[in-house]
Amino acid sequence: MGSNRARIAIDAMGGDYAPAEIVAGALKAQEKLGVEILLVGDPEQIQASLKQHHASPQPEIVPSEGTVEMHEEPLSALKRKPKASINVAMDLVKQQRADAVVSAGHSGAAMAAALLRLGRLPGIDRPAIGAVLPTMVSSRPVLILDVGANVDCRPKYLEQFAVMGTIYSQYVLGVTEPKVGLLNIGEEPSKGNDLAVRTHQMLVDNPQIPFVGNAEGRDVLSGNFDVIVCDGFVGNVLLKFAEAVGEIVLQMFKEELSSGIENKIAAKMLQPSLKRFKQRVDHVEHGGGLLLGVAGVCIISHGSSQANSICNAIRLAKEAIDNQVLERIQSQYQKSGQEQEARS
Amino acid sequence: MGSNRARIAIDAMGGDYAPAEIVAGALKAQEKLGVEILLVGDPEQIQASLKQHHASPQPEIVPSEGTVEMHEEPLSALKRKPKASINVAMDLVKQQRADAVVSAGHSGAAMAAALLRLGRLPGIDRPAIGAVLPTMVSSRPVLILDVGANVDCRPKYLEQFAVMGTIYSQYVLGVTEPKVGLLNIGEEPSKGNDLAVRTHQMLVDNPQIPFVGNAEGRDVLSGNFDVIVCDGFVGNVLLKFAEAVGEIVLQMFKEELSSGIENKIAAKMLQPSLKRFKQRVDHVEHGGGLLLGVAGVCIISHGSSQANSICNAIRLAKEAIDNQVLERIQSQYQKSGQEQEARS
Repeated sequence: MGSNRARIAIDAMGGDYAPAEIVAGALKAQEKLGVEILLVGDPEQIQASLKQHHASPQPEIVPSEGTVEMHEEPLSALKRKPKASINVAMDLVKQQRADAVVSAGHSGAAMAAALLRLGRLPGIDRPAIGAVLPTMVSSRPVLILDVGANVDCRPKYLEQFAVMGTIYSQYVLGVTEPKVGLLNIGEEPSKGNDLAVRTHQMLVDNPQIPFVGNAEGRDVLSGNFDVIVCDGFVGNVLLKFAEAVGEIVLQMFKEELSSGIENKIAAKMLQPSLKRFKQRVDHVEHGGGLLLGVAGVCIISHGSSQANSICNAIRLAKEAIDNQVLERIQSQYQKSGQEQEARS
Repeated sequence: MGSNRARIAIDAMGGDYAPAEIVAGALKAQEKLGVEILLVGDPEQIQASLKQHHASPQPEIVPSEGTVEMHEEPLSALKRKPKASINVAMDLVKQQRADAVVSAGHSGAAMAAALLRLGRLPGIDRPAIGAVLPTMVSSRPVLILDVGANVDCRPKYLEQFAVMGTIYSQYVLGVTEPKVGLLNIGEEPSKGNDLAVRTHQMLVDNPQIPFVGNAEGRDVLSGNFDVIVCDGFVGNVLLKFAEAVGEIVLQMFKEELSSGIENKIAAKMLQPSLKRFKQRVDHVEHGGGLLLGVAGVCIISHGSSQANSICNAIRLAKEAIDNQVLERIQSQYQKSGQEQEARS
């Protein structure tokens, strides 16, 4: 790859605040994380955003034409716009000119472009989007996957999510012995819908997966699990609920605080704590979801991402690259596949 | 029924704190709500609990033998123990000696006993458990169903949940024009898993349902929806997550508050507000879930219910009785069924 520095292709046209905030976040990451940035998008618009900063070196601009809009159906839009920013960014990884893609654009389009341009890792049927949430235990976040890539799943997909999640937890989140759970409605193996019951047995049987059992809704943020697998429908509902809930609780709390003079004084004193607390629950701090299972490092950020969030997404990408997550999934998964074949 | 007072059969043997807390809650409800109580269970144990109080009048005790334990498979346990407390309680409703059942015991057993002893309302394929959660808008709770009775659903079940939820929202929660949503991963009708896509169209087509569209995870507690329907797997995960999250957020917040002298003073000043806040998010205040779609009013409370929670569950039962929820579901559902037939 020529350089040891991680090279990140940024979809500068994707997201509610593109390109200004995307460019700002990319420059921040360039400075703070020492990564090499490739800004993919409309050169004129990117140049205008770059002028707001005094970055050195100036990042490379890779021209693209158009972008997939939020209301568009991903597959047809990607075909109609072969030079759309997300397509061009994926091509940079394919051509080994970049090590990763970060996009805050249409998440379905990002996934489809990754599948079409990079393909799946061998042994993986369906890629999954993983999201990291804070838990009750402050230094122990939980990785939930899938949070939206696959709304209808088979047990073997969830098994693959568990293999990939284990590796991500170990090598990006730094958990030596990750505890993997299956999202379910009860602790007993017999509990759950058809998918959950059949998946439970596969997770028990797979020696590559440090499976500790079912995780109920109340266990998700308990800190007792490092990785929780579920289908993308439940995962997406849960993720969006969790993201909203931090904000809601804060607002309800503020309503309580705004009544009475004692509370108002207390609220003033609490400002710094409230801010730290907000940071802890805020999704901005977590940057985005990793698309696991495609043959490239892809981070899918929130559409509402601003500079800090983009910078954190780039940090995630860098960690996945530095820790060779793809290579590890590939070899681990192959090993697991071979052992499965040997057993059957 | 002889009396105008609502008569509630209480499964005194069900729950982690049975019978002491169950009896205490029932006596509280008798005093506060003016309901008539029938305590179902082991007479000796109930008498011992009653002695802790000075209730007048003393509630009637209806003897039962044994109870369904949490680890038991509901159907076989119910058959093996025909005189189990939950069976006897349901029989009281069947014999019209009681108007409702409240149980904090094995929820699967309560549902199975209701189905076996009381049966379904005509036109309802599957009963659902509804749970009421507080939202951002303080006087506007949201009813979510199903939260655990049916882990694998068909579109027509969800359509029936929507009909039943609408009536419950109108006549128990007092919402004049309830807004009904379908839990999903996006706003567009094309979004979601197979179940969600097919259900969306049925809800649009049914004139009995005030359907306003898909509700994403982030919308659940927004106050923009009064009723949200989903399958019992997703609903159960979401409910348990929501219940845990209030507690988790409070704990994280307390951790923040315990650092620094300013915060400690502020925390002291905030005690009353924190307590009010806790009440607002606490499930105890909401009493339990209503089992909708069986031919009797049944409230399923948390296993961890103590006296206040049981009293609130009895309040729910009373409201469902006073507002003739069952009769309304039956007539509304029949109307909806007839119109459907007329359309097809």
